[in-house]
Amino acid sequence: MSAAAAAELARRYRTVRARTEALCAPLSPEDQVVQSMPDASPAKWHLAHTTWFFETFVLADRAFDPGFGFLFNSYYEAEGARVERARRGLLTRPPLDRVHAYRGDVDERVVNALARGALGDDVLAVLELGLHHEQQHQELILTDVKHLLGTQPLSPAYRSHLRREPVTAEPLAWRSLPGGVVSIGAPAQGFAFDNERPRHQVLLPPFRLATRPLVNREVLEFIAAGGYRDARLWLSEGWHMVRAEGWEAPLYWQRRDGAWLYYDLTGLRTVDPDEPACHLSYYEADALARFFAARLPSEAEWEVAELPIGPTADEERLHPRAAGDVWEWTASAYSAYPGFRPLAGALGEYNGKFMCNQLVLRGGSCFTPRGHARPSYRNFFPAAARWQMTGVRFARDA
Amino acid sequence: MSAAAAAELARRYRTVRARTEALCAPLSPEDQVVQSMPDASPAKWHLAHTTWFFETFVLADRAFDPGFGFLFNSYYEAEGARVERARRGLLTRPPLDRVHAYRGDVDERVVNALARGALGDDVLAVLELGLHHEQQHQELILTDVKHLLGTQPLSPAYRSHLRREPVTAEPLAWRSLPGGVVSIGAPAQGFAFDNERPRHQVLLPPFRLATRPLVNREVLEFIAAGGYRDARLWLSEGWHMVRAEGWEAPLYWQRRDGAWLYYDLTGLRTVDPDEPACHLSYYEADALARFFAARLPSEAEWEVAELPIGPTADEERLHPRAAGDVWEWTASAYSAYPGFRPLAGALGEYNGKFMCNQLVLRGGSCFTPRGHARPSYRNFFPAAARWQMTGVRFARDA
Amino acid sequence: MSAAAAAELARRYRTVRARTEALCAPLSPEDQVVQSMPDASPAKWHLAHTTWFFETFVLADRAFDPGFGFLFNSYYEAEGARVERARRGLLTRPPLDRVHAYRGDVDERVVNALARGALGDDVLAVLELGLHHEQQHQELILTDVKHLLGTQPLSPAYRSHLRREPVTAEPLAWRSLPGGVVSIGAPAQGFAFDNERPRHQVLLPPFRLATRPLVNREVLEFIAAGGYRDARLWLSEGWHMVRAEGWEAPLYWQRRDGAWLYYDLTGLRTVDPDEPACHLSYYEADALARFFAARLPSEAEWEVAELPIGPTADEERLHPRAAGDVWEWTASAYSAYPGFRPLAGALGEYNGKFMCNQLVLRGGSCFTPRGHARPSYRNFFPAAARWQMTGVRFARDA
Amino acid sequence: MSAAAAAELARRYRTVRARTEALCAPLSPEDQVVQSMPDASPAKWHLAHTTWFFETFVLADRAFDPGFGFLFNSYYEAEGARVERARRGLLTRPPLDRVHAYRGDVDERVVNALARGALGDDVLAVLELGLHHEQQHQELILTDVKHLLGTQPLSPAYRSHLRREPVTAEPLAWRSLPGGVVSIGAPAQGFAFDNERPRHQVLLPPFRLATRPLVNREVLEFIAAGGYRDARLWLSEGWHMVRAEGWEAPLYWQRRDGAWLYYDLTGLRTVDPDEPACHLSYYEADALARFFAARLPSEAEWEVAELPIGPTADEERLHPRAAGDVWEWTASAYSAYPGFRPLAGALGEYNGKFMCNQLVLRGGSCFTPRGHARPSYRNFFPAAARWQMTGVRFARDA
Repeated sequence: MSAAAAAELARRYRTVRARTEALCAPLSPEDQVVQSMPDASPAKWHLAHTTWFFETFVLADRAFDPGFGFLFNSYYEAEGARVERARRGLLTRPPLDRVHAYRGDVDERVVNALARGALGDDVLAVLELGLHHEQQHQELILTDVKHLLGTQPLSPAYRSHLRREPVTAEPLAWRSLPGGVVSIGAPAQGFAFDNERPRHQVLLPPFRLATRPLVNREVLEFIAAGGYRDARLWLSEGWHMVRAEGWEAPLYWQRRDGAWLYYDLTGLRTVDPDEPACHLSYYEADALARFFAARLPSEAEWEVAELPIGPTADEERLHPRAAGDVWEWTASAYSAYPGFRPLAGALGEYNGKFMCNQLVLRGGSCFTPRGHARPSYRNFFPAAARWQMTGVRFARDA
Repeated sequence: MSAAAAAELARRYRTVRARTEALCAPLSPEDQVVQSMPDASPAKWHLAHTTWFFETFVLADRAFDPGFGFLFNSYYEAEGARVERARRGLLTRPPLDRVHAYRGDVDERVVNALARGALGDDVLAVLELGLHHEQQHQELILTDVKHLLGTQPLSPAYRSHLRREPVTAEPLAWRSLPGGVVSIGAPAQGFAFDNERPRHQVLLPPFRLATRPLVNREVLEFIAAGGYRDARLWLSEGWHMVRAEGWEAPLYWQRRDGAWLYYDLTGLRTVDPDEPACHLSYYEADALARFFAARLPSEAEWEVAELPIGPTADEERLHPRAAGDVWEWTASAYSAYPGFRPLAGALGEYNGKFMCNQLVLRGGSCFTPRGHARPSYRNFFPAAARWQMTGVRFARDA
Repeated sequence: MSAAAAAELARRYRTVRARTEALCAPLSPEDQVVQSMPDASPAKWHLAHTTWFFETFVLADRAFDPGFGFLFNSYYEAEGARVERARRGLLTRPPLDRVHAYRGDVDERVVNALARGALGDDVLAVLELGLHHEQQHQELILTDVKHLLGTQPLSPAYRSHLRREPVTAEPLAWRSLPGGVVSIGAPAQGFAFDNERPRHQVLLPPFRLATRPLVNREVLEFIAAGGYRDARLWLSEGWHMVRAEGWEAPLYWQRRDGAWLYYDLTGLRTVDPDEPACHLSYYEADALARFFAARLPSEAEWEVAELPIGPTADEERLHPRAAGDVWEWTASAYSAYPGFRPLAGALGEYNGKFMCNQLVLRGGSCFTPRGHARPSYRNFFPAAARWQMTGVRFARDA
Repeated sequence: MSAAAAAELARRYRTVRARTEALCAPLSPEDQVVQSMPDASPAKWHLAHTTWFFETFVLADRAFDPGFGFLFNSYYEAEGARVERARRGLLTRPPLDRVHAYRGDVDERVVNALARGALGDDVLAVLELGLHHEQQHQELILTDVKHLLGTQPLSPAYRSHLRREPVTAEPLAWRSLPGGVVSIGAPAQGFAFDNERPRHQVLLPPFRLATRPLVNREVLEFIAAGGYRDARLWLSEGWHMVRAEGWEAPLYWQRRDGAWLYYDLTGLRTVDPDEPACHLSYYEADALARFFAARLPSEAEWEVAELPIGPTADEERLHPRAAGDVWEWTASAYSAYPGFRPLAGALGEYNGKFMCNQLVLRGGSCFTPRGHARPSYRNFFPAAARWQMTGVRFARDA
C-alpha cells in the first residue's frame, strides 16, 4: 500500500473509532455497564469488543491485557473460551476508563503499524473488515441503549432533543417491476461481507412493490381492527408470541389516556402516523401484510428495485422519517448464496454460522452509520426480534 | 361424481382408514394413550383427530359427541378452543373403545354420504385432502410410537421382527446436473397440497448431487473424528443444541461396551454401516456436510434430480435400507412459492401458517404410506427435530 | 414368631395388598399409566413400587425381573439408579398385566416365607413397615387419580356415585386447652414411623382450638370478600403463587354460571357449604386463618387436643363430611424430634431426608385407609401442595 | 423526647447513614448499578431504598421525587406497585449522584424534624427501626458486592487488603448444657424486631454444643472424603441442588493446581484451614453435621448457650476469623413465636410474611455492623442461600 493510501486508511480508522466513542459520550458509566436483556450488550462491552477485534485479527497479540481475550470475545469458537453472552452486563470491572485506555493502546498500535507499512494485504483487508464491523456495533450501541433506556420506568432520554422536520406519508401505492433473470449480490471487487457474494442470477416473476414503507397510520389501523387479537392473520409461531408476550402494539409503544405514545431516545412522545413504522418483529410485518392483502418481498425483489439505502439524514436523527430509515424485513430466510465461501479461519464464523432461523432485512436505518450499508447488504435477525430499527415494505404479485 | 367413482372413493376411504387402525393394532391401550414429548402425540389422539378432520370438514357436524370438537382439534384456530398440544397425553378418557366407536360412526356416515351422492365437488376435494391428511398421521403414528418405545428404559418392541434384506452401500459418488431455468412444484391438476403450488420456474446454476443418501458408515467416521465436539463444523444454533442436549450421535443411538446400537422398533441392534443414516437433525445434516466438504441441496435442486420417492419396500419395513427410505433435509427454508394461495377458510391453516423457521425435506421414508409422497411433496420440520425419519443427501457446486 | 402370629400377619398382608388392587379396579389400563403431573404417579407405578418395596427390603432379591429395580425404585439413593420421577408416566411397558403378575409373584413368595417361618424379626418389622407403606400409597392412588381425572376436560368419574349423607356444620366455636408440659410422639412400643419418635416433652402455653375444621361456607366468605386478591392476607411466597398460578379458589373448584362447582370423583357438583374445606395449600390455610383473626395450631397443640383421626366412615366415602376426613395443616415445619434416629440402611431415607421445606399435617382423611393413621402420625407436604385431601383447623392464643 | 435525646438520636442517625455511604465509597458507579443475581441488589438501590424507608415511614411524603415510591419500594404490598426485584439492576437512571442527593434531602428533613421535635413517639420508634433496617442493608451491601465482584472473571478487589491476624482453631470439643424450661426471645423493653417477641418459655432436653463453629479444615476433610458426591449425607432437596448446581465446595471456592482458593473481597487467596467455614448453604451445613455424627442446634439451644454475637473485630475485617464472624444456621424453621404480633400497617410486612420455607440463623458476622445483632436476633434465609456469611456450629444430644 502506498503511504498516501495508508494515511487515508489511518484517517478513516480514526474517524470510525472516534464516532463509536462519540455515540457513548451522552451516557454515564452506569448506562454503559448494564445489559438490559441477553440479546443486547452494554455499551462498554461494545467499546471493548470492537477493540478486541482489531487486536485479535489485525495486531494478533494480547499485549494490553491477556485477560481481555476471554472477556471481550463475542462468539468466535476458534478464539477460545469467553464470557457467556447473557453475563456481559456483570462486568463492572474492568472499569470504563480502562476500556478507554484499551482503545487508545490498540489505536496507537494500529495507526503506527499502518504508518510503518507493517501490515500485509491480507491484514489490511481484515482491518477494512474491522471498520465495517465497528460500524455494525455503532448501530447496535444505539439499539441496545434504546432498549436499556426505553424499558426503564422513567423513560430517560439519551439526548435532550432530536431534529424532527415535519413528514407527510404519501398514500400507499404500487410500482410494477418486470422480474426476469436478474443479478443480485455484491460484485467481486470492493468491500462487502462474505455473505453478499458471489453475485449471481435469480429468476423473478413480475411483481409489484409498495412505493414506501409501512407507516404508523397503517399500524394504528391494524390495531384498531383488532389485528393483534385475530389468530387468522398470524403465522403460528407469531400468534404464540403475541399471546405469550402480550403484544398489543410495536415495541416501545404504550397507551396512555387513550393515545399511543412511543419512546424515541428523547423520551415518550405521541406516535406520528406519517412516520415509517418501526420496531416490528417479522411476525408483525407478516401479519400486517396479510391484513393489507399483501406479502413481504423476497430479498432479490428488494435488491433489484433499487430502493433507498439509509440513513436518509446528513446528521444523526435517531428516529425514522423516510424510506431508508428503517430496515425492511424480507420474506427470505438468511441462507448461503450459491457458491458462498466464508472467510478463512476464525473470521469464517463472522456470518456463515448464523444461516439458520433468521430472516434477511434490507436497506439500512436512521441508526446505520452513513456509508455503511449497500444495495447488496444483508442484515439478519430472528423473526421475534423487535429492538432493532425494523420496518417493512409490502409486495404483491403482478 | 359417477356412482362408480363414488364407489371407488369409498373403497379408498375404507382402505386408508383401515390402515391407520392396523398400525395401532400391535399397541396396547396403554401404549396408545401416553405422550412421550410435546412434539409427539398419542396414537389414540391420532385415531381421533383424523376422524375429527372428516367430521369437521366433510360432515360438518358434531353428531357423535359435541365435546370432541374441543378434544381433537389440532391447531385450527378458526375451529375454536382446543386441548393444549402438550396435554394431549392426559386424555385417558374418552377410552380407546370410544374412539374406535367414533371412527366407526364417522366412517359409516361418510360412506353413506358418498353412496347417496350427497357430497358436492368442494366437499369431495376436502375428503380427498382428508385421506392424504390421514396418511400423514399414519407416518406420525409410527414416528411417535418409535419415540415412545425407543426412549423407554426397556426399549420394548413394536413388532417382534422386521424384514431385513442385506444391504451394501456403494461408495459416495457425484452426479452432475446442468441447472438452468427449471420448473418445480405440482401441476395445476391432480391432488397436491396447497404448499406445492403453483408450479413455477427457478434458475439453478449447474451442481452436483450425491448418488445416494449419507449412510451410517459416514456418521461413524464423523463421530470417530470428533465431529460432535468440534464447534467449527456447526451452525451456531446447532452447536448450542449439541452442548445443551449432550448430543454424541443421532437419536436412538447408544454406545454399549464400545459398540453403537440403535433402536429400530424391534428393539436394540447393532448399527449397520451400510444403511442410510436416519434421525439426524438439520444441524447434524449440515455439520456432516461441512465435514465432508459438501453442502445440502436446495429443494429445487432436489426436485429436478428426479430422485427416488419412498418408501422402497412393497410392504412395511420400518427401517431404512435405501434411498427413498429417509426424508432428506434440504437447505431450503420452508416458504411460500411465488403466487402461493392457501386453501379457503379454516383449511387455509393447513400449511401456510407454519412457513417460518422450518426446513423442507424431500423424498419420503420407510414410514411413509405407499403412494402418499410425490416429487413435488414438501415435508417440513424445525432444524432441531430428530424423531422423524430424517437423513440427508449431499450436494456440491459444479 | 408363632405360626398363629405368622398366619395373622399373612392375612393382614393379603388384605392390604388386595385393597390396593381393589382401588385400581374401576380404572382402565389407560387411566393407570398416565402421569398427570410430576408430583403424582400413575396407578400402575404405585402397584409396582409397593411390590418393589417388599421385594427389595423383605425378599431382598430381584427374582421376578432384574430390570424392575431400576423401574420402580422411588427415591432410595442407596438402592441405585432409577427412572426420573417426572418420567414415571412414560412407562407403557411393562404392561399392567405384567405388573399384576409381579404382584402375584412377590405375594406368593412373601406368604410362603411367612408360612415357612423364614423371616427374622428384623425382616418382619420391615414387612410391617411395608404394609403401612402400601397404605400410604393407597391414599396416593386416590389423590393421584383424582388429579388425573379431575383435571381432564370431561371431568370423568372414578365411581358413578358416592354415599352422601346430609351434613350440617355447627358454627365455628372455640375450645380452651391448658397447655403446660405435654408429651407428644409415638410411644416406644407398637408400630410407628421413625419420624414420630421419640416421644418427648414440649412446653405449650394455653391456647384455643376450633371445634371443627374450616368448612366451605367460610371459604366462600373469603372468596366473596376478595381474599384471593388481597396481598395483605398472604405469606410472601403464597401471594407469589396466587398470582403465578391464578388461584381464585381451592383446587378442583370452578365457577359456572355464577355458582361454584367442584370435582369429587363422581364428576362435578355444587359446592356444599357445610363440608370441611379441602384441597387447600398451606398458603391458603394460612391466609384463611389471618382473614378470620386466627392462626394455625402447632403439631403439638394438635396432638394433645385428642382430635378425631380419620377416616370417619366405615366404608369408602371419598369426599370429606366431617373432622377426620381432611388432613389438617399445622404451623409446624416438618423436622426431627429431639433424639430422632432414622432407620438403618436404605430405609433411613424413608422420612428423614425430607425434613426441609415441608409442613406437618395431622389427622387423616377420607382417603386414608382405616386403621392407618394415629394421633402421633405426621403427614407432610410442601406449602404449595393442593392435590392432597388438605384442610385446616384454626387455633388462637388463649 | 428531650432535646438531648433528640440530639443523640440525630447523631446516631447521621452515623448510621454515613457508614452506608462509606461502605459504598470504594465502589465505582458501575459497581453500584449492576445486579449480579435476583437475590442480590445493586449498592445504589440499597442507598436509595434505605432512604425510601425513612421518607415513607418517617416523613410520610414523597417530596423529593414522586417516582421514587415506585422505584425503591422493596416488597411492601401496602405501599403499592414497585420495580420487580430481578429488574433492580436495570435502573441506570436515576444516576448515583441523584440518589446521593435524595439521601441528602431526606437526611436534612429527618434531622430538622428531630431538631424541631416534630416527630411523635410512634414515628420515633419507626425512625429507630429505620436505623436497624439500614444496618441490615449495610450487611447486604457487603454480601451483594462480594457476589458481584467474586463471581466476575477477574475476581477484582473491593479493598486492596484486609487485616488478617493469624488464627488457630482449637480442636472440636463439646460443651454440655442442661436444658430444662428456658426463656428465649427479646424482653418487652428495648429495641428488637417484632419477630423476636414475645419472650417465652421453651422446654429443652439436655444437649451438647460445639465449642466453636465449623472451620475450613473440617470442610476440606468432608470434600476429601467425597462428601459432595455421597447422596446418603444429604437432605433430598440438598442432593438435588448439589447435582443441579454442580456444588463441589462452598461458594467462592475454586480449585487451582490442586489447591483450594477462595475469594475474600481482596481477591483470591488460599483457603485457611483454621478460619470458620463460611458461605455454606443450610443443605451443606446439614450434610456436614451428618458426616461428623452431629446435628444442627435449634435456635433455642443456640440462644440459651450465650454464644458470641458478632462481629468480633473493632474495625471492619470482612473475613471471618472467630466465632461471631459467621452467622450460624440452626435447625429451626423461621416461624412465629407463640403470641407473635406483627407491627401495624405496612410495616407488618417487615418480617411476618416471610415465615415459610426459611431457616433461622443466629449470631452475626464479620459483615454485621457493630452493635446491630443481639442474642435474640433472628436472621433467616432459604436453605439454598450461600452468598451470605453463613457458617454452622454443631450440636449433639446429651
